[in-house]
Amino acid sequence: MNYIFSDKVKDMKPSAIREIFKSLSDPNVISFAAGNPSPLSFPVEKMHAVAEDIFQNQASFAFQYGITEGYPRLREQIATRLKERFNTGSDDDDVIITTGGQQGIDLCAKVLCNEGDTVICENPSFIGALNAFRSYNTKLVGVDLEADGMNIEALENALKANPNTKIIYVIPTFQNPAGITTSLEKRKAILALAEKYNCTILEDNPYGELRFAGEDVPTIKSLDTKGHVIYCSSFSKILSAGMRIGFVCGPKELVQKIVVVKQVNDVHTNLFFQMVASKFIDTYGLDDHIEMIRKLYKDKCDLMLAELDKHVAGKAVYTRPEGGLFIWVTVEGGNGDDIAKRALNNKLAVVTGSSFNPIQGGYSPSVRLNYSTPSDEQIIEGVKRLAEVL
Amino acid sequence: MNYIFSDKVKDMKPSAIREIFKSLSDPNVISFAAGNPSPLSFPVEKMHAVAEDIFQNQASFAFQYGITEGYPRLREQIATRLKERFNTGSDDDDVIITTGGQQGIDLCAKVLCNEGDTVICENPSFIGALNAFRSYNTKLVGVDLEADGMNIEALENALKANPNTKIIYVIPTFQNPAGITTSLEKRKAILALAEKYNCTILEDNPYGELRFAGEDVPTIKSLDTKGHVIYCSSFSKILSAGMRIGFVCGPKELVQKIVVVKQVNDVHTNLFFQMVASKFIDTYGLDDHIEMIRKLYKDKCDLMLAELDKHVAGKAVYTRPEGGLFIWVTVEGGNGDDIAKRALNNKLAVVTGSSFNPIQGGYSPSVRLNYSTPSDEQIIEGVKRLAEVL
Repeated sequence: MNYIFSDKVKDMKPSAIREIFKSLSDPNVISFAAGNPSPLSFPVEKMHAVAEDIFQNQASFAFQYGITEGYPRLREQIATRLKERFNTGSDDDDVIITTGGQQGIDLCAKVLCNEGDTVICENPSFIGALNAFRSYNTKLVGVDLEADGMNIEALENALKANPNTKIIYVIPTFQNPAGITTSLEKRKAILALAEKYNCTILEDNPYGELRFAGEDVPTIKSLDTKGHVIYCSSFSKILSAGMRIGFVCGPKELVQKIVVVKQVNDVHTNLFFQMVASKFIDTYGLDDHIEMIRKLYKDKCDLMLAELDKHVAGKAVYTRPEGGLFIWVTVEGGNGDDIAKRALNNKLAVVTGSSFNPIQGGYSPSVRLNYSTPSDEQIIEGVKRLAEVL
Repeated sequence: MNYIFSDKVKDMKPSAIREIFKSLSDPNVISFAAGNPSPLSFPVEKMHAVAEDIFQNQASFAFQYGITEGYPRLREQIATRLKERFNTGSDDDDVIITTGGQQGIDLCAKVLCNEGDTVICENPSFIGALNAFRSYNTKLVGVDLEADGMNIEALENALKANPNTKIIYVIPTFQNPAGITTSLEKRKAILALAEKYNCTILEDNPYGELRFAGEDVPTIKSLDTKGHVIYCSSFSKILSAGMRIGFVCGPKELVQKIVVVKQVNDVHTNLFFQMVASKFIDTYGLDDHIEMIRKLYKDKCDLMLAELDKHVAGKAVYTRPEGGLFIWVTVEGGNGDDIAKRALNNKLAVVTGSSFNPIQGGYSPSVRLNYSTPSDEQIIEGVKRLAEVL
């Protein structure tokens, strides 16, 4: 049979990052390419203990169909955490559990966008989100990311030029891939533009808990009084990525529609691990564990920056993140595709910046480095290999 | 803010079945309304034992990001099982793990259908699938289900009238809601029409393992030599519904596209429980456990049929399923909405047949009864309550 795919998916290809992973079967290649949390960030023993409790006492409940909105106690705990930790969420909002943060992004796109509608995003931005928007045949418009967030003038120009903009997608804290945190001033400006042009901000904050330097900046959602912001995040960088538990906090009317659409997408998220996350929080709290992860990533980030300062300074510029997983290395006038290719020949995997360009095949002078996954020895040796090709 | 939803989701509402569940908070109401497996069908102790092994030996792997296609060993086991048990799947096919069977249906719709394309389905059909197709703004065309499957003449007429038909969606074995099994002759006829009109059959078989009477009928996919059939199923009715593990077996080119779209939907399915399912199969096999479930459901179905024979025969006709979870009760000239409403007033929850009509608000003279969830006492008392309102 000759298969004809729908217009929205026919041009979709596996992500370039996935292709890189194939070359990682060579054990001599050091990888700065992943976006994975460190295995040391998984609280295996404590998760084991709470799972044991569920097997003993609540297995029949955990193994049965659950409700689409998610395990009620976990939804309460998330709402409480968002309020206490980030002053985020109000009585006008609701929380739904999603199958990872990725599903939150996908469902928001499906609920808000017709084919041909515009989604404005940072350039560069998270490839998983870009591909989710593409999978609904939306038009992606990138706005250049500066050291303190989107270029606001360019954002307003993009909104003027695209009156059918439905979503402004931003990762304001420890951005993936750039490691940049948007300033409070720019957060206010982005919100004001969303109000002026009547569109929704999708605030993606998977790394917000992972601050290891500097001061918290208020979430955009915490500044919103008119229901313009949907906030999504996950437990992937805190408890486990493989368990696929994320969440969306947004205006009730929007969340209700997301619930209806999630129901036909996967009915509900794995119930057992919703209960594991919930019991973990009730039994141990999140703070001690997150503090351990912050320390771990601070040390790794500090090490990578120190090595970059030793070997790469002068050859390239790079961001100095205050949290998250990534450093963004830019060679003025250089070509990320070329750097990544030569790095791989030198047994170092990095991701070319062009992968994160909202325009497929677009140019980027940058590459993304991840410091959460490699060992200290790999960080030291990998930065040397990078310096050799620059 | 005034939210404007996308055309494809704006008319979507929570399913009528969900609304019924709200009335189930009354402990005096007996429910035949669910589609849930019996809690007795969950092999809790054995799942606990294999989970313990994973926590001890493979936790770091299980808690990290996995690949979108699914846990390789489980994919192999599924391919082997399909081949050995149902002679289904060939070298031209591939298997992807999905977040429940529901996600398989959703992704097939997304991959194959543009807005306005036609999906032909049985009338009545599974509401979760109908709503998934609706969520991509497809046109649903129902073909009447007879005692041995779809009316083939009506199917061909529907194909002629709708040249943009992309999918013929069928549940040929122990259909939900009707409990009917499509004959081999009609399976061949449906496949011949899919070939003639160049469209894809989505064969949904979540109940195929649950045969407790009669002989297996070959799957439509096992008859397919030209790549017209995508087969989807799940472990929800065998191991656990709450763990959300399903799968799709289809032509490689189609599965590759489904992988790309799943990647932006939820990255991958909960890895820990993919490993639990896999280790369960390697350690215990599925046959003994499935045999226990078959016996359990046979007894419950026999009891419900015996009670219907005692109290309802003459007032209504009903299907005599050879497997699955459901009996379909039809009152010639009656109204399912009315029967369900009066049953609820008499403290019995059943689902009106109109919920399963591809035309929203369409008429049905039937109601669906589930026998897997209620206890024996509830089956006896519930059928009495049904007889009182008929």
